[in-house]
Amino acid sequence: MEKWELIIIGAGAAGLTAGLYGARSGLKTLIIEEKMAGGNTVNAPVIENYPGFISITGQELVQKMVEQCTRFGVEIRQLEKVEGLELDNVKKVFTNRNVYEASAIIIATGTHHRKLGVPGEEEFGGKGVSYCAICDAPFFKDRRVLVVGGGNSAAITALYLSEIASTVKLSHRRSQLRAEEALVRELKKKENVEILWNTVVKEIKGDTLVREVVLYNNETGETSKLETDGVFVQIGEVPNSEFAQKAGIKVDEVGYIIVDVRQRTNKEGVYAAGDVTNRPVKQIGTAVGEGTIAATDAYGYIRRPYYYKNG
Amino acid sequence: MEKWELIIIGAGAAGLTAGLYGARSGLKTLIIEEKMAGGNTVNAPVIENYPGFISITGQELVQKMVEQCTRFGVEIRQLEKVEGLELDNVKKVFTNRNVYEASAIIIATGTHHRKLGVPGEEEFGGKGVSYCAICDAPFFKDRRVLVVGGGNSAAITALYLSEIASTVKLSHRRSQLRAEEALVRELKKKENVEILWNTVVKEIKGDTLVREVVLYNNETGETSKLETDGVFVQIGEVPNSEFAQKAGIKVDEVGYIIVDVRQRTNKEGVYAAGDVTNRPVKQIGTAVGEGTIAATDAYGYIRRPYYYKNG
Repeated sequence: MEKWELIIIGAGAAGLTAGLYGARSGLKTLIIEEKMAGGNTVNAPVIENYPGFISITGQELVQKMVEQCTRFGVEIRQLEKVEGLELDNVKKVFTNRNVYEASAIIIATGTHHRKLGVPGEEEFGGKGVSYCAICDAPFFKDRRVLVVGGGNSAAITALYLSEIASTVKLSHRRSQLRAEEALVRELKKKENVEILWNTVVKEIKGDTLVREVVLYNNETGETSKLETDGVFVQIGEVPNSEFAQKAGIKVDEVGYIIVDVRQRTNKEGVYAAGDVTNRPVKQIGTAVGEGTIAATDAYGYIRRPYYYKNG
Repeated sequence: MEKWELIIIGAGAAGLTAGLYGARSGLKTLIIEEKMAGGNTVNAPVIENYPGFISITGQELVQKMVEQCTRFGVEIRQLEKVEGLELDNVKKVFTNRNVYEASAIIIATGTHHRKLGVPGEEEFGGKGVSYCAICDAPFFKDRRVLVVGGGNSAAITALYLSEIASTVKLSHRRSQLRAEEALVRELKKKENVEILWNTVVKEIKGDTLVREVVLYNNETGETSKLETDGVFVQIGEVPNSEFAQKAGIKVDEVGYIIVDVRQRTNKEGVYAAGDVTNRPVKQIGTAVGEGTIAATDAYGYIRRPYYYKNG
């Protein structure tokens, strides 16, 4: 069984920041990532609100963070899935390849995309239904797409697709967007983007590929059909906390891991950081802040320097 | 009287981040800064632990943050000093030049350097006694300097000076440094740096300039003299919260502004972010996180979108 001082689960912005701080403080630090490094950040086509970068793609930012981490000696193991935790007494992490022992653990597993839960969504997954514009946009060059949602992710997705698709409809169940005004302004400038207000998707239909959606207007009560080649679902996130809950980590009613101001969970020596926590704002900047705090406190917890208080 | 939606006091990492988020959400946003933009970040000779930048100077990072802010329409007024606040009913900010009205206020005034409080410190201020290596290091080229302190700032200062001064002594009152291990390792590599353990400065002496310091070893009880041309004091920070306290903002026993998870103070619509708060970790990454949260919540407080809860 491999022993590490600090094991971080998840290599998004929060996990990579925690890795950087863990390694810089001298902890033997491992990051385990189920997919490739980057978390939700890597799928951001353009980032303009992470301070220091006027404009950068998610991929570039992640690349910089990974390089910075590994330069200070963090080991990042990708495509390795954590399947279970043992958090009482000796802390153990069980993956599909290994069993690890850790002095402290930081859970930074982020979120996954919420699904619509309508007929056709599963059936046409990968056949026109997508949850990631940067992954799938090239398939929709000069085609018609529908984006579903009203927050920043939906707005960014619509903007990104407007440069590639022929037309973009954005359907939102309310009469105003939740997205930042800077994004809303950009959307309004786009001649090939139209917002469908008070509109929800009831069904996705097609043959081998998506052909149309059934829409419901919750103000007028009308049902209508819209021809489209793609449906990009951006209606929120679900925390990746199931494996942690099974090990006794407390979560809120939605499933977000409950942390205190030092990012500590209810289990001693176990921290959470980034989108998976119950903190009120989910941004790259806040993930970085949380990762910094978690690793700083984990260092204190493990090495117990004179100034550390575990109270 | 000028009216703004969001007034941010302080243009360090926290204030500039809050400005970026305020303006991006569409708020009419003003930052008032007593000195020049940058806060404590601008004086960092090199930054290696802000995720995304493998190595950057404080000045470069601040320049990027300022450009990003102004690009989204934030107005930054430098060399304007806030002298008072009125926080009940209509919020007002009184400076040495203007009176402003604001819908919400974010206090991001950071900290200033703690002084030693020993004889000679005031007298030789600017004559060999310094609190900022990047400001004053050129005066000490090929000269002998003493750095006082044991945390990250002291270690970074000693490292920076080791490339410019002939010899660097680092005196610390304890037998171990509080600085990150990555910095301690770098220090140990430097042949012209020596650490004086368990040592405190009792007095600073000289003629027109600093010539020597009186040291006390708190383990052996011995007093000694050390010839030096400069004394760089890096023994911690004091929050810049006096003006806020006078307006009824609650602080902890040290003077740090008490905030909740949404960076709210005890006064409705008044937030604090960055080093001035009672949050446990003081880093650029955490300042960015706090600035993001404060501005996001301030937007909700001011514009009251459907999803905002002030509970």
